Amino acid sequence: MTAPREYPTALGASSTEKITLLGHDLAEDVMGSVGFGELAFWLATQRRPTPGETRVFEAVLAALADHGFTPTAITTRLTYLSAPDSVQGALAAGLLGGGSRFLGVTEDCGRFLHERLPGELPVDDAGWDALALETVRRQREAKRFVPGLGHHVHKNGDPRTPRLLQIATEEGCYGPHLSLFAAIGRVHPQVLGRTLPLNGAGVCGAALADLGLPLELLRGFALLARTAGLIGQLAEELRHPVAGDIFLSVDLHNRSVDPDPYEPGGRRG
Amino acid sequence: MTAPREYPTALGASSTEKITLLGHDLAEDVMGSVGFGELAFWLATQRRPTPGETRVFEAVLAALADHGFTPTAITTRLTYLSAPDSVQGALAAGLLGGGSRFLGVTEDCGRFLHERLPGELPVDDAGWDALALETVRRQREAKRFVPGLGHHVHKNGDPRTPRLLQIATEEGCYGPHLSLFAAIGRVHPQVLGRTLPLNGAGVCGAALADLGLPLELLRGFALLARTAGLIGQLAEELRHPVAGDIFLSVDLHNRSVDPDPYEPGGRRG
Amino acid sequence: MTAPREYPTALGASSTEKITLLGHDLAEDVMGSVGFGELAFWLATQRRPTPGETRVFEAVLAALADHGFTPTAITTRLTYLSAPDSVQGALAAGLLGGGSRFLGVTEDCGRFLHERLPGELPVDDAGWDALALETVRRQREAKRFVPGLGHHVHKNGDPRTPRLLQIATEEGCYGPHLSLFAAIGRVHPQVLGRTLPLNGAGVCGAALADLGLPLELLRGFALLARTAGLIGQLAEELRHPVAGDIFLSVDLHNRSVDPDPYEPGGRRG
Amino acid sequence: MTAPREYPTALGASSTEKITLLGHDLAEDVMGSVGFGELAFWLATQRRPTPGETRVFEAVLAALADHGFTPTAITTRLTYLSAPDSVQGALAAGLLGGGSRFLGVTEDCGRFLHERLPGELPVDDAGWDALALETVRRQREAKRFVPGLGHHVHKNGDPRTPRLLQIATEEGCYGPHLSLFAAIGRVHPQVLGRTLPLNGAGVCGAALADLGLPLELLRGFALLARTAGLIGQLAEELRHPVAGDIFLSVDLHNRSVDPDPYEPGGRRG
Repeated sequence: MTAPREYPTALGASSTEKITLLGHDLAEDVMGSVGFGELAFWLATQRRPTPGETRVFEAVLAALADHGFTPTAITTRLTYLSAPDSVQGALAAGLLGGGSRFLGVTEDCGRFLHERLPGELPVDDAGWDALALETVRRQREAKRFVPGLGHHVHKNGDPRTPRLLQIATEEGCYGPHLSLFAAIGRVHPQVLGRTLPLNGAGVCGAALADLGLPLELLRGFALLARTAGLIGQLAEELRHPVAGDIFLSVDLHNRSVDPDPYEPGGRRG
Repeated sequence: MTAPREYPTALGASSTEKITLLGHDLAEDVMGSVGFGELAFWLATQRRPTPGETRVFEAVLAALADHGFTPTAITTRLTYLSAPDSVQGALAAGLLGGGSRFLGVTEDCGRFLHERLPGELPVDDAGWDALALETVRRQREAKRFVPGLGHHVHKNGDPRTPRLLQIATEEGCYGPHLSLFAAIGRVHPQVLGRTLPLNGAGVCGAALADLGLPLELLRGFALLARTAGLIGQLAEELRHPVAGDIFLSVDLHNRSVDPDPYEPGGRRG
Repeated sequence: MTAPREYPTALGASSTEKITLLGHDLAEDVMGSVGFGELAFWLATQRRPTPGETRVFEAVLAALADHGFTPTAITTRLTYLSAPDSVQGALAAGLLGGGSRFLGVTEDCGRFLHERLPGELPVDDAGWDALALETVRRQREAKRFVPGLGHHVHKNGDPRTPRLLQIATEEGCYGPHLSLFAAIGRVHPQVLGRTLPLNGAGVCGAALADLGLPLELLRGFALLARTAGLIGQLAEELRHPVAGDIFLSVDLHNRSVDPDPYEPGGRRG
Repeated sequence: MTAPREYPTALGASSTEKITLLGHDLAEDVMGSVGFGELAFWLATQRRPTPGETRVFEAVLAALADHGFTPTAITTRLTYLSAPDSVQGALAAGLLGGGSRFLGVTEDCGRFLHERLPGELPVDDAGWDALALETVRRQREAKRFVPGLGHHVHKNGDPRTPRLLQIATEEGCYGPHLSLFAAIGRVHPQVLGRTLPLNGAGVCGAALADLGLPLELLRGFALLARTAGLIGQLAEELRHPVAGDIFLSVDLHNRSVDPDPYEPGGRRG
């Protein structure tokens, strides 16, 4: 016979009189003085970020928040069409598309770069270039892509990449992951024989890794950003619904019949 | 100091030598002798259904398993496109569309009929017709639809309805919910001034309620049926992929660009 | 034969050279200058919030981000234990608990207050008190609770409530929803015969409604806040895992056996 | 300008008068004559299974349907506690635990065996044993486990395994995957120096592969089985709720306070 197990947490806790978050008084010391990006960083690392780190982190979240009619956005809208009673279901359905293909590049790139960093880091661009050259060569020999390299639309350069490198530099957050990523951008044509852009999802992963966020959860930050985007998609769907038309454009049969006025919305079992 | 709480369950349990399900030896008495529909009924009610009840139950599941390119099917395919590493995510995303509009009619209809049944049930068709007349009148006065009445495609009758009524009759499972539902089908033109079909989703809800399944979970059986359908959709997507085309038909911009051969599949951040 | 349907969106869009978000150049005008709370507000309303509105909004998000071992937090940790390959699944599973009971008070309260606001608003505290008195009386007569009133822990007052009222006042965001909510706090003892606290979830709903955010999506903002909290829960689970112990505390049988060293983690079919 | 894209499907379709499923008249030829396990197989393969194949398939589903208080079961109950308005959310949340650790063995084992099958199959037990020996040796050399080998509870043998082998034999469905799996059971002690059980999840994967079901979706059938189990868990939760106690056993703080009678259920923001 033993005492009930206690599960410690350093996140939220409360007593009759007080609520704490991360060990601080929630009402007095967090609400009104900690921004949401800053708080998300703090929750994930148990370390309050500097204003510079917060700026880089929020730039990453902005870069990943919404990309228009992605599968995740379409899914959230269709799920809301089917089950408007459950906003949580519509958001969850959209997030479930945040796997290996869409949204996954951020995590893949951060992990990839991390695994290639040697114990002793290069000290200048020449050193980073040498490391990058070896990195790209090995991927090519293994017939594998370099995560974060290439983009199917922004062939001449992804505008998010130089901007994030610039912000990270301004804030003193330009660390080894971004250094290796930038070097890959410089040297890969020597190996691949063509010039590919460093894409925005990849540079975001590199920046998150440089901020010291847990590599296992890099995808989580892309999902956090996307949650804000999906709420935006739902808000737009409420103002200007298109999910019904998207559905009918796929299910042509239904398009050919008149909706029954007795059962608006084409409700089906 | 107290003993750890024990949580009883009458479902699955195991010891080193034996596994039980519903109090029976899983390997000896369930595997190989209990069909899947029968088992699902048993798990939900803790009562093994008769062969006749199983036949009605499985007819309902067949009726609800797949309706082509519904929002749930599209969602499962799009989520699999985005996150092919997570079949569970693709199925879960599809099921999340099983709310009030699509799939919900089954539950709404079963509950609606149940709430209208009086303590003392009618004993003949005339009695059921009188109850049905009152039921439809009250809905009309409240300006509310009768769940299960009307269909946007099968305007002249939903073929599932007479078939399920027939099977339930054959198996002695034609109870008060189906009786009231059928009576609504007979009398509603007197009130509404037009003839509407009793739809398949509705008759399924009535049949499930007559089988004694928990009303709070009627939607759950529609979701069980749909899980089989969504696996069918994924299998078809594997054989003949269309999710990418559906995505591009919505996101016209992406259609206008060549996919980059370096990054197949149009992977994006 | 018709042209493919075009689906407009005012959110994310891109061309070969440029990416826009909300009509602005993402790289130049959003990244590095728009905070994440500000961006989430903007995405949901198509209107850039003022710094004061952003501060109120972020205070709400902080108030809702994490409450320790809630069912949503436990669910996310257990799902990650079962399927560590899918961070998106663990987050989505947690968010699915954001329904009517947990997290739902925020939306319920915002909607409730909104529905009670008359066309012509009161102009002073006496007017708000009269409206609040009528509101509480009607709920009592209908034997219904007032959403946002009462808390099972913070019986003497929820510290988030006065703090959020203060922040909203400081930022000029104290509108009719907060006015009615505060008045309910003042007058309800006259009707109910006891003094209950205005809870934090409720005041958050009132504040979000005063900020002009879509009422249909108030729950969505609670879910956005909780996404950050759930990432924090996962980060803590990575540093200090407890999900296995939680599982075993429920499934006592498994606790009684030695884990097989050949299959670490107690993997089961 | 082009015609709208048509998306073909061989699953569900309907016209005004008729509904088809898998090319058959749903009402006349499927409802009342096709069992649910049979239908699920048919939907996934576009091939109607024989009665023998159906029996093996349903034995697998029975073996995987419910294992008591697994993380998936706890998750479904906790999510229903939090959001009782969304049965679909509770089921989806539970299924999201069906990843690599729990439920994943079935798929891992089926794929593993498939990849080890040579172009020309062994013709007798000696041949299978030789293949199995090589298979186990290679795994050991690579310091990897053999999927399906070992169980943390059923150390002396998993009762599902011999039973499923027997049923498959009876029905003429004992093919190469089961043959290799059984041979691994015979020979692995020679390599590993200890005798481990062939577990039930693994034998299910081997049987599903022998039935010709798509390897990419083997996890999907485990999830289908588990959907029935999770509905059983919800039904039990409705009859005998324990989710609240599970939650409070983790969140000890809340246990120490009296629930407020004004807000039953301990509702929190």
